[in-house]
Amino acid sequence: MTMDLQTERCGVDGAAAAARRVIDALVRAGDISGADMAGIADRLNAVADDLEAQAPPLRDRLVNMWRGDGNTRHDPAAGPENPIAPPLAYTGRPDGSIESDVTLGLPYQGPPSSVHGGVSALLLDHTLGVANGWAGTSGMTAELTLRYHHPTPLFEPLTVTARQVSVDGRKIRTTGAIAAAGRTCVTAEGLFIAKPLPRPR
Amino acid sequence: MTMDLQTERCGVDGAAAAARRVIDALVRAGDISGADMAGIADRLNAVADDLEAQAPPLRDRLVNMWRGDGNTRHDPAAGPENPIAPPLAYTGRPDGSIESDVTLGLPYQGPPSSVHGGVSALLLDHTLGVANGWAGTSGMTAELTLRYHHPTPLFEPLTVTARQVSVDGRKIRTTGAIAAAGRTCVTAEGLFIAKPLPRPR
Repeated sequence: MTMDLQTERCGVDGAAAAARRVIDALVRAGDISGADMAGIADRLNAVADDLEAQAPPLRDRLVNMWRGDGNTRHDPAAGPENPIAPPLAYTGRPDGSIESDVTLGLPYQGPPSSVHGGVSALLLDHTLGVANGWAGTSGMTAELTLRYHHPTPLFEPLTVTARQVSVDGRKIRTTGAIAAAGRTCVTAEGLFIAKPLPRPR
Repeated sequence: MTMDLQTERCGVDGAAAAARRVIDALVRAGDISGADMAGIADRLNAVADDLEAQAPPLRDRLVNMWRGDGNTRHDPAAGPENPIAPPLAYTGRPDGSIESDVTLGLPYQGPPSSVHGGVSALLLDHTLGVANGWAGTSGMTAELTLRYHHPTPLFEPLTVTARQVSVDGRKIRTTGAIAAAGRTCVTAEGLFIAKPLPRPR
């Protein structure tokens, strides 16, 4: 085992990955599982009790989670520390775009066996923001338009891409898409306003 | 204790509520907590192992989670069975709109101490869909436009509202908003296409 793997297993990332398994298994179970749900609730509440007893003050955690000026690790789309996030992991491409491959399960369902349109919106909004950071000029989302061309399948590899298109004064325009097996399912156009975003210090 | 409370505590809803506490506590902890994260990961993986060992076949669960023709209980915005969902709970209003009050914590963060723009998009997309169901004509999201007017605060009561505006042939137009302390933070306009959506049987 390499040190990297060991670090991942022992840190909050490993606990978040385990929490993702719990989320998926609970949605899979619903109320037709043979599992002892009262016992499961007791065990999860005990974990939450132990974590809360050791929790840092909120202010300290806010400073900590926003340390540095680059990417953060806690957000609900790409944050390895956040069990809500799939999480997306990005690769920068030479043309200035970014890309993430992901397969989504039942907790992200909208229509039967399809990704929830709002989940696609969450992943695209975040990815457009990361594309802005990759291009060097970031901003706050002012307007986001999503177009749904085809259902986005669950349980199949998806590719989420985004690219900064233009910067005109404070106005940043960025586009993105989610595709499955080469077919575009959702496209996004975002208008962002460049402004310094103070981080908690 | 009433029977209703007992049912909730013992079913999957109680386990999902406990999983929400774990998600919140993990994001609060990050890597500056004194908690034994390797031990936490082991305990969560053991819960996932037990749930997975009792999991119904996926096909059975899909039929089960889509039973009936009304609202479902598993989605990532309002589903009490889904730990990712806050979850929103809706009230219909006499004017045909619907409303949900919710307070969001750290797992839903975008900018510092503010709700992630993509989370607002998720909650609004879903709420527009519920407003369509409430009005009697539902459809699939074709286009969704979000406008971000002010940061949406974490840790403060939010009101999410939506209303079906028009039905013209198969085209449904629906609007919604998220407000905090009476101030509109995000607005949404959706175009939905009415079509029968076959449910797994």
